[in-house]
Amino acid sequence: MPEFLTLLSPDEARSLLFRHLPDLQPAAEKLETRLALERVTAAPVRSPHPLPEFPRSTVDGYAVHAGDTFGASDSLPAYLKVIGEVPMGDEAQFTLAPGEAAIIHTGGMLPEGANAVVMLENTQNVQRVERKERGDDSNSPGACVRDRCALEIEVLRAVADGENILRAGEDVTAGQIVIPAGARIRPAEIGGLMALGITQLRVATKPKVGIISSGDEIVPPESDPRPGQVRDINSYTLAALVTRAGGEPVLYGIVPDKLAALKTLAARALAECDLVVITAGSSASARDMTAEAIRSLGSPGVLVHGVNIRPGKPTILAVCDGKALIGLPGNPVSALVVAALFVVPLVERLLGLPLDRPRPSLMAKLTINIPSQAGREDWVAVKLHPSPAIGRGDGGEGEWLAEPIFGKSNLIFSLAAADGLLRIPPDATGLAAGEVVEVMLM
Amino acid sequence: MPEFLTLLSPDEARSLLFRHLPDLQPAAEKLETRLALERVTAAPVRSPHPLPEFPRSTVDGYAVHAGDTFGASDSLPAYLKVIGEVPMGDEAQFTLAPGEAAIIHTGGMLPEGANAVVMLENTQNVQRVERKERGDDSNSPGACVRDRCALEIEVLRAVADGENILRAGEDVTAGQIVIPAGARIRPAEIGGLMALGITQLRVATKPKVGIISSGDEIVPPESDPRPGQVRDINSYTLAALVTRAGGEPVLYGIVPDKLAALKTLAARALAECDLVVITAGSSASARDMTAEAIRSLGSPGVLVHGVNIRPGKPTILAVCDGKALIGLPGNPVSALVVAALFVVPLVERLLGLPLDRPRPSLMAKLTINIPSQAGREDWVAVKLHPSPAIGRGDGGEGEWLAEPIFGKSNLIFSLAAADGLLRIPPDATGLAAGEVVEVMLM
Repeated sequence: MPEFLTLLSPDEARSLLFRHLPDLQPAAEKLETRLALERVTAAPVRSPHPLPEFPRSTVDGYAVHAGDTFGASDSLPAYLKVIGEVPMGDEAQFTLAPGEAAIIHTGGMLPEGANAVVMLENTQNVQRVERKERGDDSNSPGACVRDRCALEIEVLRAVADGENILRAGEDVTAGQIVIPAGARIRPAEIGGLMALGITQLRVATKPKVGIISSGDEIVPPESDPRPGQVRDINSYTLAALVTRAGGEPVLYGIVPDKLAALKTLAARALAECDLVVITAGSSASARDMTAEAIRSLGSPGVLVHGVNIRPGKPTILAVCDGKALIGLPGNPVSALVVAALFVVPLVERLLGLPLDRPRPSLMAKLTINIPSQAGREDWVAVKLHPSPAIGRGDGGEGEWLAEPIFGKSNLIFSLAAADGLLRIPPDATGLAAGEVVEVMLM
Repeated sequence: MPEFLTLLSPDEARSLLFRHLPDLQPAAEKLETRLALERVTAAPVRSPHPLPEFPRSTVDGYAVHAGDTFGASDSLPAYLKVIGEVPMGDEAQFTLAPGEAAIIHTGGMLPEGANAVVMLENTQNVQRVERKERGDDSNSPGACVRDRCALEIEVLRAVADGENILRAGEDVTAGQIVIPAGARIRPAEIGGLMALGITQLRVATKPKVGIISSGDEIVPPESDPRPGQVRDINSYTLAALVTRAGGEPVLYGIVPDKLAALKTLAARALAECDLVVITAGSSASARDMTAEAIRSLGSPGVLVHGVNIRPGKPTILAVCDGKALIGLPGNPVSALVVAALFVVPLVERLLGLPLDRPRPSLMAKLTINIPSQAGREDWVAVKLHPSPAIGRGDGGEGEWLAEPIFGKSNLIFSLAAADGLLRIPPDATGLAAGEVVEVMLM
């Protein structure tokens, strides 16, 4: 039997593990930006040019010299001559002189000579004037201009220099780092990259995570188990978890509880992958075998054998020649909980993601008291129900009730029925009914 | 200019839209379970057999008749003869008679005649006894048994019938619905399905979402824009959002601000897809063109033109002959926010997901006051910083500060710099510095 004398908390154990891992630069690969959703940047991305590349209007209205509108009000409007319309997607073929304005649409390029835009609703058209002062430029855009006349507008409110426009480079300047290294690509990042014409991107290569299921009783899911045999669950739950974290699972199948076979397969997985996860056979002797196999694979070897957590106490954390090996309990529920605490952060670290970034969760009101042993961190599967007291008609708000799912901890369907996991910190002796608790959705 | 007289709130607008959509059964396809992560079940999944299929031990110890241990204590142990060991992955070749016990490991199959397991730590080995009472069964498993002798153990604590075992069918019974229809497949569901040998699964087909970008000024991201032109952002942010929601984006490219061209392309997209999203050119006239194009595509047509939200007021919601069409503002930030509120729920509805399920978010303390107009729902991009007051050493807890990112709303990189969006509900006139607010991570 392994000795659990002074067990580390999960956080202490993870820190110890991370301290023994080398700081590697993640391997990188080039990818089309449009396919890079959820991938992680391998290097900072710099803007090749300013954005926008030209001054743009942010409203529909008239491009003007701001100075021409100073002092304008409803009772004392400024009068400006409209000399044309800025076409969308093109530059104006004219330059604004003092006293002149041009029709401009949201997103249109500011014409030469203009430095602000008056919103349409702050103007009035007053009269047509003969366009003799601009010559017979019959190709100028704008309906009235085509009629060889010009509109004169009343400006009812003054605008300041730069008002209602986006200056060139106001979003980003040339050479600016627009996305740091180690950033997860979301829809907004894809949009920003496309705006800059960056259609290819260097992202961290998905870390390979070798997964080994061990146990004499384990058979593949597609087989028909004989009495005493059970189907492999852990290979597939762990593969799914690794995939979701951004890693590439490599399944090494099922190995019987034989030390030599386990050593051989683990050594192969370690050589081929960035991280290896072994789920032990469920008996104590099988768990000890995992630790023994790991000891032969490199130094420093086993760092942690047993963590002060429930479920998942018989967890093994090891580093062999720069790569992490995690020995998980054979119980599928324990394996999944412990993998979320150790394997997922390892995958994220290999991707270059910062580990202290914000993570979403859900606040809920606990329905009943949950006892817990002080000093031990507990993770309890909970089902969430909308609170009957508060309506959820407004879509985003409302309140959730967290109902712990009790039951024997090796029931995989108790986990499938759960919406999330509730953490009882080591310093607590339980949580009280009515407390608002944080639920990590699964 | 469209008239925004009495604008609906986003929730009211979404309800109105959903009421006009038919209740369709999602199209389904068969998929290997191991590849079904994040997909949605198209039908309830029933267990083909009980789980576990045989009674199993949940601890390492001795399989016993519970009755043989009644009254056992440290001072008055019960004495049982060990007749063998249950092999992992096989059934025992013996039946327990009264007064007998068998070595069993966690997960091992309970032998005939046993109804409970005594934990190893509640027993003591006392002596070897001559095995004459079981005959010369030299092939029995167990080290001592091979020596033609048997162990006798002291049981120091009584066990009840069923203690430390999992009965057949205790996780699930045959025919039980183990996963309902409309459930998103997570690692736990994959594990449960594998445990039952369900290696193929019927999932909802990914809804096809047609995406059209319109605007005379828009050019593809790979092109070199001329003055006045900007690269297409919306096609790619929306495609990424749709992908993340579980849909299949179909990009129809960029259409100029010409009614006939927009009508033709939208009609084609509507025929080929389950849902169509059009981002308008950025000017008011271009936005009106989207509404006009939609009006020609089927009934009832435009349901909502303008929503009481910022950003995103000029949103168009329509249903044409049973399919939804969404007209989004051309501004990439507005388009992304509004798509999260309308397009994502539509994709989820097409997948058969329940819309009132729990959604993760993050609670944070607001750094400054944010004013807001009563009656309007505002979404504000925020950056999250760890609070300096509270350490985050323990990994899961701590406190976040939400700092609003102000700036002109059409800056895509202000969104790329944000961690999430903060909702200011319609009935609020703003949020105060120090308030704990809910941030929807992006």
